Amino acid sequence: MSWPQHGGNRAWGAAVAGCSPSDILDFSANLNPLGPPQSVLQALGKALSEPDPVAISCYPDPDYRRLRTRLAEHWRVDPDWICVGNGAAELLTWAARDAQGGEVWLLKPAFGDYERALWAAGAVIKPLRYPFPNEQGSLGLAELLRQSGSNPAGRILWLNNPHNPSGGLASRPEILDLLPQFQQVMVDEAFMDFLPQDDPEDLPQPDAEEPGAEVGARQALSQTLIPYLADHPNTVVIRSLTKFYTLPGLRIGFAVGHPDHWRRWQRWRDPWSVNGLASVAVEAALADKPFRQRTLAWLPVAREHLRKGLQALPGWDPWPSQANFVLVRCPGSATQIQRALLQRYRLLVRDCRSFPELGDPYLRIGLRTLPEQDQLLSACREILENG
Amino acid sequence: MSWPQHGGNRAWGAAVAGCSPSDILDFSANLNPLGPPQSVLQALGKALSEPDPVAISCYPDPDYRRLRTRLAEHWRVDPDWICVGNGAAELLTWAARDAQGGEVWLLKPAFGDYERALWAAGAVIKPLRYPFPNEQGSLGLAELLRQSGSNPAGRILWLNNPHNPSGGLASRPEILDLLPQFQQVMVDEAFMDFLPQDDPEDLPQPDAEEPGAEVGARQALSQTLIPYLADHPNTVVIRSLTKFYTLPGLRIGFAVGHPDHWRRWQRWRDPWSVNGLASVAVEAALADKPFRQRTLAWLPVAREHLRKGLQALPGWDPWPSQANFVLVRCPGSATQIQRALLQRYRLLVRDCRSFPELGDPYLRIGLRTLPEQDQLLSACREILENG
Repeated sequence: MSWPQHGGNRAWGAAVAGCSPSDILDFSANLNPLGPPQSVLQALGKALSEPDPVAISCYPDPDYRRLRTRLAEHWRVDPDWICVGNGAAELLTWAARDAQGGEVWLLKPAFGDYERALWAAGAVIKPLRYPFPNEQGSLGLAELLRQSGSNPAGRILWLNNPHNPSGGLASRPEILDLLPQFQQVMVDEAFMDFLPQDDPEDLPQPDAEEPGAEVGARQALSQTLIPYLADHPNTVVIRSLTKFYTLPGLRIGFAVGHPDHWRRWQRWRDPWSVNGLASVAVEAALADKPFRQRTLAWLPVAREHLRKGLQALPGWDPWPSQANFVLVRCPGSATQIQRALLQRYRLLVRDCRSFPELGDPYLRIGLRTLPEQDQLLSACREILENG
Repeated sequence: MSWPQHGGNRAWGAAVAGCSPSDILDFSANLNPLGPPQSVLQALGKALSEPDPVAISCYPDPDYRRLRTRLAEHWRVDPDWICVGNGAAELLTWAARDAQGGEVWLLKPAFGDYERALWAAGAVIKPLRYPFPNEQGSLGLAELLRQSGSNPAGRILWLNNPHNPSGGLASRPEILDLLPQFQQVMVDEAFMDFLPQDDPEDLPQPDAEEPGAEVGARQALSQTLIPYLADHPNTVVIRSLTKFYTLPGLRIGFAVGHPDHWRRWQRWRDPWSVNGLASVAVEAALADKPFRQRTLAWLPVAREHLRKGLQALPGWDPWPSQANFVLVRCPGSATQIQRALLQRYRLLVRDCRSFPELGDPYLRIGLRTLPEQDQLLSACREILENG
């Protein structure tokens, strides 16, 4: 079985470890270990036990009107500004096709599927170095733009915020300043849900007549660009629903932006990209505020626990992270440690060989529960001590 | 809500009828009314109630090795010759991209998504008239090829067999003769499962040492081209699993052909196109031989019942069909009848306005159970009598 390009490949881990995929404890996929929410499992079970289980026995509505309306209510945008997809990954394919013929500024290291999608669309990639460890929170692009002297026409920016694999966060004011300087911008906010924020369900509706309601909503929604997109029709934000709610097997993501984007995208793809059970799951997940509260309470504690534990390993250098994973530089070969963790402990962490700017010394470790993290940390310690 | 381009749009039907989508009895989608199989519902329920429901909580294996192996066993081909997709419709998008720059011979009327996909890929469509009502079973392409004098290089054929919306069937020998005369061929066999055939599970495995086993398998598998593809690396067969097993909400289809096709397609699309529950459903469905037997026993009876019932309506002319639907020419405006069926009876049939070669006089009616067909036939009779 060939070495995987992406995290979350338990089939590969199981082949290396000589066990079944369900025996593998996965730190490689950046998923929320508290999920899937019981509310989602119950809603799926109910959908399957209907006398006519329409979520599977009928074609999805090609307009996905109900699903888009629910997402729009949650995020306080117009449903026409929402496009749903078979995971965020499918939407990257069409965002890339929008970039066809343009020069795409891409901060690297970056999620490998960006280059796959951009290559497939025939876009030209201008690779830039992501400024990590990003303790200042600045991308440093403003200075590059001044130096480049190039014209915004045909200049495209692809950003990932928070950044994978480093966990760095660029500030919203910095990104807002960049948007008008590009013809198109794609911001992948796959990990944005994990940032501290007020629950979107608590925010005033956009038609609320309270003065300042909109401003309040913008501030409360953490660092996401979603509330600002009406002013930036050149920008698309892509979001995942599967990482925060631990549903990567179901495949569901969405994009927010000017509806002209979707009018194009719909002609490029087939009409039924999101399966009916994914729609059911999203409705249940968005209604589950306690799950979101539990996750956001657990996350900073778990991240600090992991970071400290990694820092205590001799020579290991974990980077500051705002996301639900930690990038760590190891003194020796991280891929050897990865293999030992798999073969001896059935623990799967993400090596960084698919990020050429990082390579062998780095591991990316997704947060899990504290006991699971302790299991990983003592396994690392044993490997370091016993070779 | 805009008028739908495809069948199975109960959301649209419900909006016209002023009811909820689940109140609509759908004759428009060409699904098997005996499904979904209980075996599939049970397998899905079991997958969701596992302590760790890996079908949804983990990323799918991007190689889909297990799913492809199961399909390959069933169809007696090499797993490397199988590619899975988010419904057959997704696979059409990539088959069309293979046709980029070529001239695609397309028999029309045809499934609307062919033109969407080919247009998106920048292929040139050469529309040809499908010879219906196709009582001879011949496509008449051999003569056209002789006349055209054009070179096979850059000449591409897209076929649908059995043909939607007419239900006509072209013979396998005729299609096999055509294959070498094109650079590429895509054959959409979305409705082939509904043809009388031996159950694939009963056929000898390809490595069986019995002399003639391969020939036997080829004959027994009805009219599908699948057992012949090893001799035709220029040809891809696309199959749906959702029509026969009534799972269109789950989205799962597959393609069979030379692995070089998939090496290209995988670079054009994201790595996780098939959701985990669709994989679970396929395994259960393929194991359910009694469901296939029940369906194939019911189908010819239901088709004859519907055809005779339609023929008894004054001026109605149902065409011969080998598939699980019947195309019928009405004496007046079929779309007015469609609207009356919806508004007065909540019965949804497929008008043919999206097939410009057919247009207003035609309806396409999917087979359903005999009592449901009787319900439709008496509603038609009442509409004709009462205006």
